[in-house]
Amino acid sequence: MAEKQIKFLIELEKLKGVERRSYPIGLDRRENSAEHSWSLAMAAMALAPVVVPQLDLLRILEMALVHDIVEIDAGDTFCYGDQKGKIEKERTAAQRIFGLLPADQAEQWSQLWEEFEARNTKESLFANSLDRILPLIQNFHGGGKTWLENGVRYEQVMERNLRIQDGSPELWEYARKLIDAAAARGWLPKG
Amino acid sequence: MAEKQIKFLIELEKLKGVERRSYPIGLDRRENSAEHSWSLAMAAMALAPVVVPQLDLLRILEMALVHDIVEIDAGDTFCYGDQKGKIEKERTAAQRIFGLLPADQAEQWSQLWEEFEARNTKESLFANSLDRILPLIQNFHGGGKTWLENGVRYEQVMERNLRIQDGSPELWEYARKLIDAAAARGWLPKG
Repeated sequence: MAEKQIKFLIELEKLKGVERRSYPIGLDRRENSAEHSWSLAMAAMALAPVVVPQLDLLRILEMALVHDIVEIDAGDTFCYGDQKGKIEKERTAAQRIFGLLPADQAEQWSQLWEEFEARNTKESLFANSLDRILPLIQNFHGGGKTWLENGVRYEQVMERNLRIQDGSPELWEYARKLIDAAAARGWLPKG
Repeated sequence: MAEKQIKFLIELEKLKGVERRSYPIGLDRRENSAEHSWSLAMAAMALAPVVVPQLDLLRILEMALVHDIVEIDAGDTFCYGDQKGKIEKERTAAQRIFGLLPADQAEQWSQLWEEFEARNTKESLFANSLDRILPLIQNFHGGGKTWLENGVRYEQVMERNLRIQDGSPELWEYARKLIDAAAARGWLPKG
C-alpha cells in the first residue's frame, strides 16, 4: 500500500527541523519551515477568497504546502542574506526529494515547486505575496526582533517586498504601511 | 484591507505553541499542532490521489489544515487519555476563534471543523484516517517512544485505530501491520 508515498512522508518530517530566522508571534524560539508552510496555507485560505476570489484556491494551497520542502536538503536561505547558489541547491533537492514519489507524482510535485519559484501564474504570484507578507506581520507583532538581530534596513525591506504588489496590490498597500510603521518605531533604520 | 483575516492569522500563531504527545521522527522534542496540521495536509496530497482519487481533495486539505485550530483554547487531548469534556471545550473554542473572521468565513471554517469531527462525509472519514495513521507511523519510526512513555497497550491502539478502515480499508491494513510489528518489538504490551 503506497510504500513510496509513506517513505516520502517520513522524509518530510525533516522539514520540522529546518529553522528559519523568524519567530512565531509570542514564542521565544525560531520558527521551523513546516509550521511556516501551514501558516502560508492558512493565509491562503483566509485571504484568497476575499482578495483573489477568481483564482484556483487548490493550486495556491498545494504550492503553499510544498514550496519549502526543498529546504530539507538546501536549508533556509535568509531573505536579506546571500542568495548565491540558492536555486541550484534547491533544484537538486527537488529532484532527490520529490523523486522519492512514483514518477507521475514526482512530476506533479516538482511542477508545483517550479511554478511557485517561477511566479509565472496568478496563483503563484499570490502565493509568493503571502510568503513575503507573513514574516512582515510576524516581525511587526514580535517587536521587530528578526530585523534588529540581523541589522536589516528599511530600504532592504522595501525593495524585497515590493514584489508583493505583483500578487496583490491590496496586500502590498497593507505591507507598505506595516514597514513604515516599523521604521517609525525604530526597528528599521533608514539610509 | 482584510483586517479581521489578518487578526485571525495572528491568533493562529498560537497553534505553534500547542504541544502534542508525539515526536517528529528524528527530533528530540514534542511535535506542535501547527506542524502536525501541515503533515496531515501532506499526507492528504500524497495519498488521496492514489487511495481515494474520486474524493474532493480541496475539501480534505481544508479540513486537515483547520482540524486542530480549536486546540489553541482547548489544548491537545492525548488520544489514549481522558476524553471527558473534550468536544464541549472544542466547540466553545471554535466559536471564539472562527468568530474572529467575518461572519460568512466564520461559518465556512466552523463547518470544516464540524465536518471533520462529525465524520459524516467520505472526505472527513479519509481525513480522520490520516489523522490516526500519522502518529502510528511517527511512533513506529521513533522507537515507540510515545507509547512507552505513556504506558499504552496493544488493545488500546487496535481499538482506537480500527476507525481508520472507515476512511480507507487499505490504510487500515497498513496500520494493522504496523501495530503488530510494534507489538512484536515490545513497544505495545498485550493483555
